[in-house]
Amino acid sequence: MIIGSTQTTNQNPITMHPIGIIRSPYAQKFAVPRQPGLVRAARATIELHGTAAHPDSVRGLEQFSHLWIMFVFHQTQAQGWKPLVRPPRLGGNKKLGVFATRSTFRPNPIGLSVVELEAIRIDGERVFIDVIGGDWVDKTPVLDIKPYIPYADAISNAQGGFAQTSPATLPTVFSPEAAAQIECLASEYPQLRLLIEQVLAQDPRPAYQNNSQDVDKTYGMTLYDVNIRWQVVNQQNHVISVVKGF
Amino acid sequence: MIIGSTQTTNQNPITMHPIGIIRSPYAQKFAVPRQPGLVRAARATIELHGTAAHPDSVRGLEQFSHLWIMFVFHQTQAQGWKPLVRPPRLGGNKKLGVFATRSTFRPNPIGLSVVELEAIRIDGERVFIDVIGGDWVDKTPVLDIKPYIPYADAISNAQGGFAQTSPATLPTVFSPEAAAQIECLASEYPQLRLLIEQVLAQDPRPAYQNNSQDVDKTYGMTLYDVNIRWQVVNQQNHVISVVKGF
Repeated sequence: MIIGSTQTTNQNPITMHPIGIIRSPYAQKFAVPRQPGLVRAARATIELHGTAAHPDSVRGLEQFSHLWIMFVFHQTQAQGWKPLVRPPRLGGNKKLGVFATRSTFRPNPIGLSVVELEAIRIDGERVFIDVIGGDWVDKTPVLDIKPYIPYADAISNAQGGFAQTSPATLPTVFSPEAAAQIECLASEYPQLRLLIEQVLAQDPRPAYQNNSQDVDKTYGMTLYDVNIRWQVVNQQNHVISVVKGF
Repeated sequence: MIIGSTQTTNQNPITMHPIGIIRSPYAQKFAVPRQPGLVRAARATIELHGTAAHPDSVRGLEQFSHLWIMFVFHQTQAQGWKPLVRPPRLGGNKKLGVFATRSTFRPNPIGLSVVELEAIRIDGERVFIDVIGGDWVDKTPVLDIKPYIPYADAISNAQGGFAQTSPATLPTVFSPEAAAQIECLASEYPQLRLLIEQVLAQDPRPAYQNNSQDVDKTYGMTLYDVNIRWQVVNQQNHVISVVKGF
């Protein structure tokens, strides 16, 4: 037996193959909430692919109200990682160790989100899992799905450091023009107004601009294929326009 | 733009590199509890390796009481997976979809466990994280460490199907010989008696033998480098011997 051989084996790289892809309203990373569960109007669908896309694979899954989704931070994967990151919750100006955060820039780019299970749809050999409250960019690759097991996973007395409670939220008002534009899109996206309200409530602006007094600055984000433009005045979101098209 | 190119990209395999290794009392898969948190006497240590083993990587981690550990099911990885598995909680005779279970036989062999953080120890450039309640075989490779965030992760009203509550436990009695053997090992393993009690309380026997009337059958397991032999009589564990050596 070679001394140290076990350790060498356990350090070997491991190749993962995505089992599916997530379709979500978040066309870009900018609008994605910082944790799952904060934006319930965000419906997402996991489409299983390849050998995982078998109806047997999800048998009994409907017994569970919540699921863990493990996925790939595919948009930031190529940028690598550093030992220290700046969490938005700390205003973006204080550094913490990467393992003390849920930053997307990690040694292995695996994300973990718990979501509510809405429906499982089986269409021939295709399997779709509809979930509520996801925090994924559209087209995120999925690595695994596990049931949420309350007695093991729900630790009510856990201490969460800088992230103990939900982030504060901002109220949103719509200009008459924006409200009318949303009405025109209602047949295609019935929950669009609620989705915009819930996404903007999380204040997706970069942390260093949260306290900015620059009230004239207009921000933009894309949900589905809809562009939303807004300003922040006195800690309130003012939606200016809601227009279709990339 | 090539139609379908995005989907092809998102199906690409991803190579993961372990960031460390877990040292735990469980020398073999047999004794490992079926979920984390069930055996608090099981102390484990995560040793970070390579570029992740930097003191900066864990800065601020001490603010959190609990951590998520993502790891590799390295002992079962080579055996592949099937869409249906037989969970021990259902007696081993009912099949469920792999994604409705925490089975180790998964398309991507990633495990997920929440544990209590006990201590972070930094020794020069080496980083050790001591945790309580792990459910890992010794030398398990680690892929990621994330803080447990109560407001996002602790879902008190979640429905857990067949795994809603903790498994029933079995009491344990020690023969005079076994008790004496434990005393002899106390200086090396002070918590050994408690660890054996807590591991056996989970009834690690294969599910199909749980209701066996074969009272003469002797079971064996290894914790650290100690062999434990026991029988199960009238839903009670009887420890026969506790002997050092593989």
